[in-house]
Amino acid sequence: MKTRSLAASLMVVGAFAGASVVGAAETLVKPVQPAKNINKGMAELGKKLFFEPRLSKSGFLSCNSCHNLSRGGTDNIPTSIGHNWQQGPINAPTVLNSSLNVAQFRDGRAADLKEQAGGPIANPGEMAFTHDLAVNVLESIPAYRAEFRKVFGKDKIDIDQVTTAIAEFEKTLVTPNSRFDKWLKGDKKALNADELAGWNLFKNSGCVACHYGEALGGTSFQKLGIVEPYKSLSPADVTKGRGAVTGKDADRFNFKVPTLRNVDMTYPYFHDGAVWTLKEAVDVMGRLQLGRKYSDQENAQVVAFLKTLTGDQPKFALPILPPSTDQTPRPTPFAK
Amino acid sequence: MKTRSLAASLMVVGAFAGASVVGAAETLVKPVQPAKNINKGMAELGKKLFFEPRLSKSGFLSCNSCHNLSRGGTDNIPTSIGHNWQQGPINAPTVLNSSLNVAQFRDGRAADLKEQAGGPIANPGEMAFTHDLAVNVLESIPAYRAEFRKVFGKDKIDIDQVTTAIAEFEKTLVTPNSRFDKWLKGDKKALNADELAGWNLFKNSGCVACHYGEALGGTSFQKLGIVEPYKSLSPADVTKGRGAVTGKDADRFNFKVPTLRNVDMTYPYFHDGAVWTLKEAVDVMGRLQLGRKYSDQENAQVVAFLKTLTGDQPKFALPILPPSTDQTPRPTPFAK
Repeated sequence: MKTRSLAASLMVVGAFAGASVVGAAETLVKPVQPAKNINKGMAELGKKLFFEPRLSKSGFLSCNSCHNLSRGGTDNIPTSIGHNWQQGPINAPTVLNSSLNVAQFRDGRAADLKEQAGGPIANPGEMAFTHDLAVNVLESIPAYRAEFRKVFGKDKIDIDQVTTAIAEFEKTLVTPNSRFDKWLKGDKKALNADELAGWNLFKNSGCVACHYGEALGGTSFQKLGIVEPYKSLSPADVTKGRGAVTGKDADRFNFKVPTLRNVDMTYPYFHDGAVWTLKEAVDVMGRLQLGRKYSDQENAQVVAFLKTLTGDQPKFALPILPPSTDQTPRPTPFAK
Repeated sequence: MKTRSLAASLMVVGAFAGASVVGAAETLVKPVQPAKNINKGMAELGKKLFFEPRLSKSGFLSCNSCHNLSRGGTDNIPTSIGHNWQQGPINAPTVLNSSLNVAQFRDGRAADLKEQAGGPIANPGEMAFTHDLAVNVLESIPAYRAEFRKVFGKDKIDIDQVTTAIAEFEKTLVTPNSRFDKWLKGDKKALNADELAGWNLFKNSGCVACHYGEALGGTSFQKLGIVEPYKSLSPADVTKGRGAVTGKDADRFNFKVPTLRNVDMTYPYFHDGAVWTLKEAVDVMGRLQLGRKYSDQENAQVVAFLKTLTGDQPKFALPILPPSTDQTPRPTPFAK
């Protein structure tokens, strides 16, 4: 089903390849739009919570530990480090532009940012806490109680408010104004000849069939390894991919197509983080997904294009977190 | 020697206790001054390096991991988490106002911020990297090469530049404008009656004999447990304290007097992080250092005073770190 969608898309894209319709593929991609309709108070609270290590058992790990906003919204290691330095099963996808995703996590098991935000807090391999304990910590801190009350108008904090606020902050994490977006908007000097050649290769050889939309990805689930199988370093439950959600064996190795926005910052690549360079990633994608071996020059051009997708990074003051009180439950960093 | 200094200081302070000389003790403490003579370009580079996980073996830990500037410049756990979740031997002191310290680390083994900054990078129990590898990583990143060249005017990056830049950033991390400082400067409404009573107890019962100066501490080494011994949770090499540096047995259990600036944010307390509340910390200090059991009311007043020492927290945009290149040595998060 997904594969057939891809094939159908490829046919559509194939139609763009002719010189007569050059420009048509540009309608498949769109410049990243600045965040709109943000509840500022809620996003400010969410920002604090995103940086809040007290949502973890250890008091040491926060959302920002693995979705580091200094580093493209990811941790730049193959798979993440969880409580007690546990090795995560999968590469942490970037939080940047994640509001544009059709669903969250690589297998799409969370419908939206709000649902996603609750996952790592309670995952024993990640922040290793519970929703109840996290709420207890926040409830013990007068400054948080006051801020939640102001934002949500309720007397008690609950996990729904916590994840709603984090999601609202994450909605602000879009990255407009990349050079490619400037080019899309008409600034023809924004890309040089190699970068433009890379974009033409990207659309004409079929990459855009999956990596389309505002985020150049994030809109569909596709099989990794269509033409040739991908030799994954991941455990079997991870390679179930979308199949773990749908229960269909046909969805094995189907993953949400990752966004290519800021891809120069979000190495290493793929669900197993096995590939560190864009050069290798482009080569693997060309061969396994499209049955195409890019020449060195073509590869370099596609890579040059991909590097134009880095947009404005989040810009905000480091949040200052209110201190714990004598009543705040204490972290247990060295408990297993 | 240190103990005799303390006794002498206590005599001096004792003289302040009479009503006729009220106000004299105020000359022992000073408002925190804003940072001066900062090389802005160097401090900006140092800020990036302070948040740079690629100075660690794992690519996951940065200076900010344990000296979290969202949280009073510390990690708010008893002892820190190092590479592979190793449990550190000692409580991480705050980096805030650390430029005011007579020396760095609790035992003063580093003469200044620059010397300190090199320690954790190469400590196998902390960031577990080497200075050479850290420099290799930075050298592989064109944006860092350009920024170092601009700041230091040299063709090659070296560890001396790295630690110099981090120290320059750390010099900016002072916290002026606490309520106590406003009071010291003449705003008599800045403290309420309990807080003022707490300050009077603080100076008249002898706390100020060690906790004096701009940082209310950081200026001398003193024995922990003068009147009664402190039962430390730390390993023996930590309880050597200053003795590990001087080689003198008499300096065992001597530690640098910690700053009390922002002490409401820098829990848990003491070199072993064994005490979580200011109430208990004040009680322990009174009994062990001064032979004085504060009443509940006195304790609450001293605690109220201590909470007026929270100043302006660092305010700056989260730094964005330049991405690695194909040549950048890769982190090894799960290597022992």
